[in-house]
Amino acid sequence: MSHNSFGHLLRMTTWGESHGPALGCVVDGVPPRLALSEEHIQPYLDARRPGQSRFTTQRREPDRVRILSGVYEGLTTGTPVQLLIENTDQRSKDYAAIAETYRPGHADLTYDAKYGLRDPRGGGRSSARETAARVAAGAVARAVLGDRVTIRAGVVELGGIAIDPARLDWAATGDNPFFSPDPGVVDAWAGAVDAARERGDSLGAIVQVEASGVAPGWGAPLYAKLDAELASAMMSINAVKGVEIGTGFEAARLTGIENADEMDPGPDGRPRFRSNHAGGILGGIATGADVVVRFAVKPTSSITTPRASVTRSGTATEVVTRGRHDPCVGIRAVPVGEAMMALVLADQMLLHRAQCGDG
Amino acid sequence: MSHNSFGHLLRMTTWGESHGPALGCVVDGVPPRLALSEEHIQPYLDARRPGQSRFTTQRREPDRVRILSGVYEGLTTGTPVQLLIENTDQRSKDYAAIAETYRPGHADLTYDAKYGLRDPRGGGRSSARETAARVAAGAVARAVLGDRVTIRAGVVELGGIAIDPARLDWAATGDNPFFSPDPGVVDAWAGAVDAARERGDSLGAIVQVEASGVAPGWGAPLYAKLDAELASAMMSINAVKGVEIGTGFEAARLTGIENADEMDPGPDGRPRFRSNHAGGILGGIATGADVVVRFAVKPTSSITTPRASVTRSGTATEVVTRGRHDPCVGIRAVPVGEAMMALVLADQMLLHRAQCGDG
Amino acid sequence: MSHNSFGHLLRMTTWGESHGPALGCVVDGVPPRLALSEEHIQPYLDARRPGQSRFTTQRREPDRVRILSGVYEGLTTGTPVQLLIENTDQRSKDYAAIAETYRPGHADLTYDAKYGLRDPRGGGRSSARETAARVAAGAVARAVLGDRVTIRAGVVELGGIAIDPARLDWAATGDNPFFSPDPGVVDAWAGAVDAARERGDSLGAIVQVEASGVAPGWGAPLYAKLDAELASAMMSINAVKGVEIGTGFEAARLTGIENADEMDPGPDGRPRFRSNHAGGILGGIATGADVVVRFAVKPTSSITTPRASVTRSGTATEVVTRGRHDPCVGIRAVPVGEAMMALVLADQMLLHRAQCGDG
Amino acid sequence: MSHNSFGHLLRMTTWGESHGPALGCVVDGVPPRLALSEEHIQPYLDARRPGQSRFTTQRREPDRVRILSGVYEGLTTGTPVQLLIENTDQRSKDYAAIAETYRPGHADLTYDAKYGLRDPRGGGRSSARETAARVAAGAVARAVLGDRVTIRAGVVELGGIAIDPARLDWAATGDNPFFSPDPGVVDAWAGAVDAARERGDSLGAIVQVEASGVAPGWGAPLYAKLDAELASAMMSINAVKGVEIGTGFEAARLTGIENADEMDPGPDGRPRFRSNHAGGILGGIATGADVVVRFAVKPTSSITTPRASVTRSGTATEVVTRGRHDPCVGIRAVPVGEAMMALVLADQMLLHRAQCGDG
Repeated sequence: MSHNSFGHLLRMTTWGESHGPALGCVVDGVPPRLALSEEHIQPYLDARRPGQSRFTTQRREPDRVRILSGVYEGLTTGTPVQLLIENTDQRSKDYAAIAETYRPGHADLTYDAKYGLRDPRGGGRSSARETAARVAAGAVARAVLGDRVTIRAGVVELGGIAIDPARLDWAATGDNPFFSPDPGVVDAWAGAVDAARERGDSLGAIVQVEASGVAPGWGAPLYAKLDAELASAMMSINAVKGVEIGTGFEAARLTGIENADEMDPGPDGRPRFRSNHAGGILGGIATGADVVVRFAVKPTSSITTPRASVTRSGTATEVVTRGRHDPCVGIRAVPVGEAMMALVLADQMLLHRAQCGDG
Repeated sequence: MSHNSFGHLLRMTTWGESHGPALGCVVDGVPPRLALSEEHIQPYLDARRPGQSRFTTQRREPDRVRILSGVYEGLTTGTPVQLLIENTDQRSKDYAAIAETYRPGHADLTYDAKYGLRDPRGGGRSSARETAARVAAGAVARAVLGDRVTIRAGVVELGGIAIDPARLDWAATGDNPFFSPDPGVVDAWAGAVDAARERGDSLGAIVQVEASGVAPGWGAPLYAKLDAELASAMMSINAVKGVEIGTGFEAARLTGIENADEMDPGPDGRPRFRSNHAGGILGGIATGADVVVRFAVKPTSSITTPRASVTRSGTATEVVTRGRHDPCVGIRAVPVGEAMMALVLADQMLLHRAQCGDG
Repeated sequence: MSHNSFGHLLRMTTWGESHGPALGCVVDGVPPRLALSEEHIQPYLDARRPGQSRFTTQRREPDRVRILSGVYEGLTTGTPVQLLIENTDQRSKDYAAIAETYRPGHADLTYDAKYGLRDPRGGGRSSARETAARVAAGAVARAVLGDRVTIRAGVVELGGIAIDPARLDWAATGDNPFFSPDPGVVDAWAGAVDAARERGDSLGAIVQVEASGVAPGWGAPLYAKLDAELASAMMSINAVKGVEIGTGFEAARLTGIENADEMDPGPDGRPRFRSNHAGGILGGIATGADVVVRFAVKPTSSITTPRASVTRSGTATEVVTRGRHDPCVGIRAVPVGEAMMALVLADQMLLHRAQCGDG
Repeated sequence: MSHNSFGHLLRMTTWGESHGPALGCVVDGVPPRLALSEEHIQPYLDARRPGQSRFTTQRREPDRVRILSGVYEGLTTGTPVQLLIENTDQRSKDYAAIAETYRPGHADLTYDAKYGLRDPRGGGRSSARETAARVAAGAVARAVLGDRVTIRAGVVELGGIAIDPARLDWAATGDNPFFSPDPGVVDAWAGAVDAARERGDSLGAIVQVEASGVAPGWGAPLYAKLDAELASAMMSINAVKGVEIGTGFEAARLTGIENADEMDPGPDGRPRFRSNHAGGILGGIATGADVVVRFAVKPTSSITTPRASVTRSGTATEVVTRGRHDPCVGIRAVPVGEAMMALVLADQMLLHRAQCGDG
């Protein structure tokens, strides 16, 4: 019952702080004889890596992953896979001021309330830097899933500007610095981010993650339902404030007639859905249709505009957060959302196999 | 790692099907020497009970709870509390038709895909009837929380008609059949529900659950964060398709300046927030402000308007769901949402005490 | 993390007190489409049932099991199986004296120390009566294991009188009231038990449990090793004070040369062991040889000879335990040990399948 | 449900192979504000370190521990503590022969059966080298326990030669290379070990671990009983084949009159036991008397005397294990047993606090 673990059978435990010597994770329950090496993991870390465009933080971390255990001669052995990423760009600076003040929107106040102390360097454990470990673990989860499942993700709304669903093209996400599946919004988003930064402000975003090839039957009712697991997975990402499946909140505004995903017999005799309001999940179990999740990322809390706050000792103050910060943390949340999707699905695949066989 | 369990230290395991002899739950980890009796639990079951207005299903279940263990002379003993509710209104009817057809929006298809068989009587395990066990367990969780925490919940949108936030009055939820905190919408909602039923249709809803008195520090980062636990809890309720915390999805449309919850020193020296966009949670840990969660409930899938579907053997068919169904399942989800809030908070209270003491 | 649960993927949670209205368990994770009915479970409860000879307690309980969920038309559905056994022979008597005194060897003192109160009726939760629920769950585990695994158990030592290993005949255990696999000791054991009871005394025993047909590979290193799971399972049975695997403690007195289980190629090419000091387990994983476990059961603590004790309020007293008690609790521990073996093996079977497939 | 994790609330997950680049563990659930540094951990690793006398393996590892996370300015922060130990003495050698042959008593066969491959270098994950991570985690557990609990351990029997219980002196364990609490046996043990090695043989041992200061009430019935947890903890150590509590297996040979631990009122009004057959545990809960555990360690399986075996491809062969091996692995199991005791007790302390408060 580790609080820093995720998953039931494929179980990741992350560790590390933003400015400690290293961070990483141990992934337990990996099936044996899967091909795995640093080369399988590194590309996902590279996608998440900061400093790749002017729209993300300028912290420069190579984020090189090392596999310390669980792999022998290029194959997983069934024993725990420890992944380690060194922190290299730890600017020496004086954290005394931050240590004494609670920045609005940050976990400063709450870590202090919980633990009676905190590591103030770069947010410590509450830093988004922890998500590097998730992305690395997500690559292991992909090895577990194999080729049957394809995961796609992108930003579908930024600063209130949504993509045009009719122009959604997942292949486009690699061609712009926003992971946008609609190239038509890229200029508007770039302008919005630049303007926000200029006025000492930041922007929020909505990320969509989809998976196709999910086998009907994956999901573990009632309290490890596929949708409940995804909700927990995505909500555990820094700055996420909402999660929805399929049509999501809008489904509450449809009527039962409209929301019904009618079915026809498919060519294989299996039902085929005319629509996918359900987002590929009914009763917590996958239908076989694409699994569709969206999550809302609040605007970065670290802004250069002064905000009213309070010191540890209880006096009023103003806070300005300088330093290297993402103007929109939602952008780099895309590979993290993909990783969490992979982790949930691989875990459910193993759970399903355990109870119901491979059938 | 029971899939039918919820919670870490206060752990509920539910069991039972819609039309079996009984359903219930065992709640483990209950602290000793708490006053508990059937009288503490029954009122919450009564609030959830069907058949209390024309806006809910006409199935009539007394839903009397019995405590079978864990209580001696009116006090909890620290051993598992088994709660049992008999099913009494199990209409004898022919389930053969349902057993052969997949109703759109139901878990028929997916239970079949997962398990290769299913109990078709009233939805079996996937029935919302299982939530009676949650509500009973939630009453135990309230005993664990004691008086420090107050939980409020209601429907804040129904059939696309939202309450007026300016007129939100939690005391009003008991005075109307919709658990609406704004009496001004009651007539409109009644009309919408009646109209939907008349045309063989159903409606969705959005439920809001709040808790005040949550101690700063509750929450277990990083993967049992308070918000991640709430997301998992609410998403596990039947028909829920989205969960958000505080300002939720709208936070993605605010800027960092707007979304910052500025602080002033409170009278006790502790920070006091000017706003609560965060919904009482930062970094997965409670701030001390009200914890605010909303969840979206899709329109009832059981409708009398024919929908295209497929039989088990793969032939096209049309499905009409007759019988006693809630025209808007969101209404009776209110006490369920309250119960899940209580379960999450009581669990986090114990987790916090274990790691950080009572301080 | 329920403390009253056992197992990882096949997970039993027991509940109930000795003199409450009922006791039972919920078994989660049961694979679907297994034949299961009360008739599959009852024989195991009958074997454990008290009052069947003069060598066990005269409490008379029919111990009829009811399946309340998880089975439909004779097949498991994959949902939780709730098993309920009513307590019928709850003698009305005055527990005030017991409630105020700590009986040596009982959990009176410790439950009081832990919880600040206890249910004194018949030992409450600490009563061996709880093992009825385990035996019922064990029958479900046997359904999961199927025919591939055979479990045998018996008393191999009683009151210091051991069976002759050369005459061990598992088929004999059903023919005597001691579950002895060596009929040659039955008269001596009967005499020893009668003599002990006559002098107000009780006896201990050693129980051996074996399983054949365990697939090589079952076991989950490093902290859910097959032997560690068995040790935990057996030690959790009331009055058990020691557990050993294979040659056990005596292995510490052998040399490496003596203790080596040498191997020859078997007819199927797989290694065949010349001996089984290892008790079928190496590195926490099954070798394919018989899994052999022994556990030591202390003499019944409830004796009619006065023993020095202390009251709740701290004054010296003498305790005599009258009532209906097993003169040797080790006897009725035999079906319990079998059940725990079945639960551990079925759980490991599912864990193995999850990580390594069915291969 | 990581198989490589131990503990409920104080949860250690170990990782690493004997001849990989490093091994270690992450310890989650550590309370905040405890003093912790490498200096607190290193002495325990030094006690376990090989090569300190001629009676242990000549592998020379400095076993320097590094804390990579969870500690800030000398205090624990409540976040996961990652401990890393580099492997430095990895002799380059040809493992091809070992990789093809199953050494009797080793996990070669079973890892192969389970995973279909294995890391043959020095036993891979099944090597006793993994226990270095446990010892490091045990030091963290001691920080959690604080000064209230004192843990003592030693070898009480070696090669069939037992200490004289009347001369047991825990202070003596540091003065001889066997951790013997009775200096009188040291010469006999040294002679036995030397003789065994000379004839290409090895010896077993029995280790006793005791804890005083354990608060009455610690223990989590029914399936995380203090004794069941200890049994699981000790049985998970390499080469352990039996575990017993208090009088253990011998209790099965006592009568109820003899085995009763009679009580007198202590000076504080609390019961004081005249004897401790129970080993400090009744009903799975600590009585306040010393917790006493013994475990049996089989003779080292790596011996230079040829033993009959089988190759992976199924042909008969003989195996001789050369290299640097402990002639009696029981000796270095002493610090490991202490560490497991500390881990179990610290975990139970937190569990007790969660459910029952600090009272």
